[in-house]
Amino acid sequence: MSRMDSGEIEAQLAAAVAILEEAGPIALRHFRTSTTVENKAGEHAFDPVTAADREIEAFVRRRLRRDFPDHGILGEEEGFQPGANDACWVLDPIDGTRAFMSGMPAWGMLLGLTLAKRPVAGAMHQPYLGETFAGVRDGEAWFRRGVEQQRLATRATTRLEEAVLYATDPGLFATASELAAFERVSQACLLRRFGGDCYAYCLLALGQVDLVIENQLQPYDIVPLIPILEGAGGVVTGRDGGTAQDGGFVVAAGNRELHARALELLNSD
Amino acid sequence: MSRMDSGEIEAQLAAAVAILEEAGPIALRHFRTSTTVENKAGEHAFDPVTAADREIEAFVRRRLRRDFPDHGILGEEEGFQPGANDACWVLDPIDGTRAFMSGMPAWGMLLGLTLAKRPVAGAMHQPYLGETFAGVRDGEAWFRRGVEQQRLATRATTRLEEAVLYATDPGLFATASELAAFERVSQACLLRRFGGDCYAYCLLALGQVDLVIENQLQPYDIVPLIPILEGAGGVVTGRDGGTAQDGGFVVAAGNRELHARALELLNSD
Repeated sequence: MSRMDSGEIEAQLAAAVAILEEAGPIALRHFRTSTTVENKAGEHAFDPVTAADREIEAFVRRRLRRDFPDHGILGEEEGFQPGANDACWVLDPIDGTRAFMSGMPAWGMLLGLTLAKRPVAGAMHQPYLGETFAGVRDGEAWFRRGVEQQRLATRATTRLEEAVLYATDPGLFATASELAAFERVSQACLLRRFGGDCYAYCLLALGQVDLVIENQLQPYDIVPLIPILEGAGGVVTGRDGGTAQDGGFVVAAGNRELHARALELLNSD
Repeated sequence: MSRMDSGEIEAQLAAAVAILEEAGPIALRHFRTSTTVENKAGEHAFDPVTAADREIEAFVRRRLRRDFPDHGILGEEEGFQPGANDACWVLDPIDGTRAFMSGMPAWGMLLGLTLAKRPVAGAMHQPYLGETFAGVRDGEAWFRRGVEQQRLATRATTRLEEAVLYATDPGLFATASELAAFERVSQACLLRRFGGDCYAYCLLALGQVDLVIENQLQPYDIVPLIPILEGAGGVVTGRDGGTAQDGGFVVAAGNRELHARALELLNSD
């Protein structure tokens, strides 16, 4: 299975996109209603889980088991279900639950495919906007809204002084050293914006922003986005320059040069 | 003219909405393209003005002069043009230029009507989402997307511990005292989100968030939103509890009780 050819990967990506788009109406049924929010983390932390997360994950898992009975599934809500081969779907039913809870359409439904733990294809669907972003690691990435489809390509900004940076929330840089590292890059950039969630990576793939720096990510927050970013010409790693797929502190840039400059400044303390 | 009755105000609001919706395609022609960004503030600050801002303002001014030749117009780009009566349109062609520049649809086109300097009607149109929010100060506020229209109503959260707070960027609280005041409220809330721009106030009117606290606003950033917020049952003032229409430090809440609690905590140093 690790030797799945690019045609097979494309076909599986198309299936993933179809499943996410089929699940879109479930999300929309809950969006901007008085959704019941449970508090998964107990009284002192705040990790909201909505009914929408659970329903979407259950739906997507059913579809995946039907279409790919031998693949494993790793999902935010129900954890890891091993498969009979080394292919594994990685699912975040609603990435950006806080955006979802606030009525802001910066959340998305994420589904990615790994082979021998390596992300090879991924998709993000935003049903309120009617947008889908998808990509293949060693191939192309594309964006579709309605009948319009375009190839995704990051932009060529290589200097931090010209770069637009996105991050979800400064609070994610929880230690003084992390915050200082983020601020070094942030202050070197032309513009910094907060509040992106998974949508920020999609804006990077669209060539609308240049850098996304985040922290405290889970694997399912980033794995489905890696092939979209790489298919669009972007570079995404951990803060140490290694793989981003384990989550944690993640740095995504539109190109190798800008990525190297951001990483250098992040690690210059 | 100050004695314009509610029917006349409703009619002028309908005209404002029609003008904004007609201008929507101008904004979309520039959205997510490689828009030329000029730097209005010189080298060391960053106040982007896009071609879209200018084109939209010119278009809306032409329409307003045609339909309301006696009204004044105050707009972000071209300043104040006095009218023959005490009615004045207040226009922000693209509120959230930074969101616009980043490809994030949290920007909006704002147009409000003041009578004797008092905001009486206002509208926000977001053409990428196809959404319009509109309201009358002593009347109702409504939301429309496609053929669906609903009345806007803020929600009843009265405790900060249960409140969702929006702000555009922590950097707007430029002095240590402002930032400390914002942080006091922020830390008392259930959830804090950044990146809202004018859309955050619309989410408040939709009953999706409970508080919006911002700083460094211009009058045209807030005047068109005041009738939407008040028509939806919300309360919006300056930090001192006085009028919000001059901009500066603005506090908007879904109801009087929550607003009082936020103001008290902001001013408790």
